[in-house]
Amino acid sequence: MSRKDRGAVLWFTGLSGAGKSTLAEAVAPRLRAEGKKVESLDGDVVRTHLSKGLGYTREDRELNVARIAFVAHLLQRNGVFVLVSAISPYRSMRSAARELIGQDFVEIHVAPPLEECIRRDVKGLYAKAISGEIKEFTGISDPYEPPESAELTLDTSAMSIDEGVGRIVQRLRELSFLEPSSVDRQPSTGNP
Amino acid sequence: MSRKDRGAVLWFTGLSGAGKSTLAEAVAPRLRAEGKKVESLDGDVVRTHLSKGLGYTREDRELNVARIAFVAHLLQRNGVFVLVSAISPYRSMRSAARELIGQDFVEIHVAPPLEECIRRDVKGLYAKAISGEIKEFTGISDPYEPPESAELTLDTSAMSIDEGVGRIVQRLRELSFLEPSSVDRQPSTGNP
Repeated sequence: MSRKDRGAVLWFTGLSGAGKSTLAEAVAPRLRAEGKKVESLDGDVVRTHLSKGLGYTREDRELNVARIAFVAHLLQRNGVFVLVSAISPYRSMRSAARELIGQDFVEIHVAPPLEECIRRDVKGLYAKAISGEIKEFTGISDPYEPPESAELTLDTSAMSIDEGVGRIVQRLRELSFLEPSSVDRQPSTGNP
Repeated sequence: MSRKDRGAVLWFTGLSGAGKSTLAEAVAPRLRAEGKKVESLDGDVVRTHLSKGLGYTREDRELNVARIAFVAHLLQRNGVFVLVSAISPYRSMRSAARELIGQDFVEIHVAPPLEECIRRDVKGLYAKAISGEIKEFTGISDPYEPPESAELTLDTSAMSIDEGVGRIVQRLRELSFLEPSSVDRQPSTGNP
């Protein structure tokens, strides 16, 4: 099976409020337009379906992320492009996912500065984390270990969503998950 | 999308030792030979990946089965034939799975008499359940609610594995999940 016929797991990792789900949602129609089957596994949504009762200790986070990786792998190996949006703060859990999924794993670090996430505070969680009302909050009272060799890093404080989507699509073409676009191709030499 | 291009969930329900996993394993290569993508979700295996820590109370069984149904649905709607082997003893949990998955849900009741399962006792569990060493054991100390309208019922005490597989494949053809086989077709009239 050539790479373009296989699925892929786009693993969006980063702080709460970084823009992981937003980017995943925005890239999905672009992938469908290229004929790909697409499923989204959003960390928050998955928690209700696969991980009810799990909390935010390191162990519980690891279990939750391992379940997401298990399901993502099942879909990917059946030709689906799986968009995972999960803080997945520990390097070890992302390495385990990469090991399971192999070369079809694409790690996308959604990496605006922490200050930008605090400023946005879309869900009002940072305020609660800073006041101590929420414990074990990634970036405030819990660690985030940034990727050392992500396939792509996007500082969403410095680009539009469209620009981010463009960068993802371009990287997927470079990695041969998508066909080269016509504008990327070398111009014809004119020879028949 | 015509039905034959879609996936399906073959949901094998029945007592421990009934032969659910055996039938699922045996039917998988037959489906692959017809060009289908196939994944197996075995209740015991899934427990290690999705439901570590869950026990055998009704509530925990419901959670486990709901997770299996969630994953089976994701795969099925991407064209995969999913073979679920899970005791899934309560009607309500199987109804919920059927409702989620819709018309691509095929309930297969693997139904040898309880006495046959006790006689086989492949994993030695019935002896322990009867002695009281294992609690909450389906068919002994926990209920099994048989399906009222399964797509197929197989008494595996009265047929070989091959025969069971043949019955499943035949039913899938009747339900248009598989193409009619050449031997099922009407003989040619001889007209061009």
